[in-house]
Amino acid sequence: MRIARLLTPGPDGAHPRVVVQAGPDLPFTDVRRAHQLALQRRGAGERASLALATALVPGSLSAALENGEPFLDALHAAAHDTSGDAVAAPGRLLAPLDPVAYRDFLAFEEHIVNAAAATGGTVDPVVYEVPISYMGSAQAFIGPDDVMPWPTYAHARMDYELELGIVVARAGRNLTPDDAAGHILGYTVLNDFSARDIQVREMRGRLGPSKGKHFASACGPVIVTPDELDPHALTMTARVNGEEWSRGHSSTLLWRVPELVAWASASEPLAAGTLLGTGTVGRGCGMELGRELRPGDSVELEIGGIGVLQNRVGDPDGQGWAPTRRTPRLSPAR
Amino acid sequence: MRIARLLTPGPDGAHPRVVVQAGPDLPFTDVRRAHQLALQRRGAGERASLALATALVPGSLSAALENGEPFLDALHAAAHDTSGDAVAAPGRLLAPLDPVAYRDFLAFEEHIVNAAAATGGTVDPVVYEVPISYMGSAQAFIGPDDVMPWPTYAHARMDYELELGIVVARAGRNLTPDDAAGHILGYTVLNDFSARDIQVREMRGRLGPSKGKHFASACGPVIVTPDELDPHALTMTARVNGEEWSRGHSSTLLWRVPELVAWASASEPLAAGTLLGTGTVGRGCGMELGRELRPGDSVELEIGGIGVLQNRVGDPDGQGWAPTRRTPRLSPAR
Repeated sequence: MRIARLLTPGPDGAHPRVVVQAGPDLPFTDVRRAHQLALQRRGAGERASLALATALVPGSLSAALENGEPFLDALHAAAHDTSGDAVAAPGRLLAPLDPVAYRDFLAFEEHIVNAAAATGGTVDPVVYEVPISYMGSAQAFIGPDDVMPWPTYAHARMDYELELGIVVARAGRNLTPDDAAGHILGYTVLNDFSARDIQVREMRGRLGPSKGKHFASACGPVIVTPDELDPHALTMTARVNGEEWSRGHSSTLLWRVPELVAWASASEPLAAGTLLGTGTVGRGCGMELGRELRPGDSVELEIGGIGVLQNRVGDPDGQGWAPTRRTPRLSPAR
Repeated sequence: MRIARLLTPGPDGAHPRVVVQAGPDLPFTDVRRAHQLALQRRGAGERASLALATALVPGSLSAALENGEPFLDALHAAAHDTSGDAVAAPGRLLAPLDPVAYRDFLAFEEHIVNAAAATGGTVDPVVYEVPISYMGSAQAFIGPDDVMPWPTYAHARMDYELELGIVVARAGRNLTPDDAAGHILGYTVLNDFSARDIQVREMRGRLGPSKGKHFASACGPVIVTPDELDPHALTMTARVNGEEWSRGHSSTLLWRVPELVAWASASEPLAAGTLLGTGTVGRGCGMELGRELRPGDSVELEIGGIGVLQNRVGDPDGQGWAPTRRTPRLSPAR
């Protein structure tokens, strides 16, 4: 099953629709419409069935996932609807998930080693002891074929990061890896765009990447459910302007995917609609290769069994307000 | 004006209500009820006015703020409603904001210097060049008098952090500090609880604090609007079991509050309902004082003009699943 979102025009403007596909070459079924028709078959009136279906299947996939099993049931029913009565209207693919939260791990050893070498650092043993992660912005997701906005404060060294995205279907807390497998809706392609100049600078402040990451991340084109693929057996490639830059494999993860999900849920709420990233696969970004993106570049990330996520690098966003340097009063820093 | 949320019992169970107070000793007005009555005075029927008021004033303050100026108008009207017809029903204070996103800065120089000393590090000059920040979890907020859950993976060095919280009223992007002032709903007391053992360990992985912070943050008791206080003239204190541990002042911020808001919005969407933290005031946490919290401790954070945020430290959460160490294959790390 493949889950996507389409931006579909209508009398209220263009709005996202959650759609589902039983297989890669089949038409998309509109989940809200399929559910509305199912409610009508059970005696709900036209207006009431629309109100109920709209509440259960909003255009936000993360809001829909908050509806729990009733939504997941509607999703599965729509995927198996062969009537053709609820075929999705044409629309543009959006990011399949508008995540409620986004946590990105650092779980590919080769990337860790290469990134340390590229920035003149060393690999700390802690990266082998616990899965290291940071929270990204859930507000700045773009989808297939969207333009990556180039931030005002980034002057060079723009980069992509080739990652596997894990979509959380069911909320949980203190999950074991065995539990965690049942909380995964599916997998998508994730590009954690990174502005290396500001990122490397601000990481010296010891709170991790922030403005160097939060300007944009991309996911898509679809979410593929776990019954259709093994997340530890995926070929991952990146092409820039058609030229292959990166090639890696998800079998090189330090931790299994359910272990990452379990650790994300340890002693904190893991919300339905969360996106977890594996971190960049080995050689899965320009920094590891001594290369960088330029305005106008087309970046295609591909994961076998999921698809291709294409984005164009936008033009620099002009000049913006930036903070001025403060004078140290208490520390010997210069 | 003071904005809060009350958990109020009703026939559908206990649900949060957004309430507002014109001054510190006045009764709370229920914003949804006040708006419903205002709609009825304009001819809306009883059921229709409730449906409209429920859509405009949901129990989630961040969801209400997504409604833009129409919600802010209803909030102001309720604060000025002296009829007494919409006095809030009794209820327990909740976190006033359930943030849609949570970004915490590192903007007090004395804390930066003390934290570096306490962890054997040095102060990097970048902390004077740009406001350093990390994204926290927006999913783990607790409110006044709630118990802080002690994580399974934290074995010692539990800590509080005394911070000023800034609540974003209006979405924005690329704001200047002059613009930013108009995007602030108000200020609250923020406790960024920190499990120092795991935090210090995982920060060696260079992505900043993560599991050491994301298990719980607290805010409350109310949000005070900017017309009632100057965020740069606030006395901040912390008491543990009634004993004063911390005393600081918001005038020692490296950047002005509107500058922090502007930087948070630079080249990325700043959503309505976002909570920004200033970072810990100087001497505003146990790590700077060589002290730590223990299960059962009562932590009271007070900011003059806002109020007191009290939380009790919970008992350790028992044993949870934890990842096992991986064998390095590619790096010389031991």
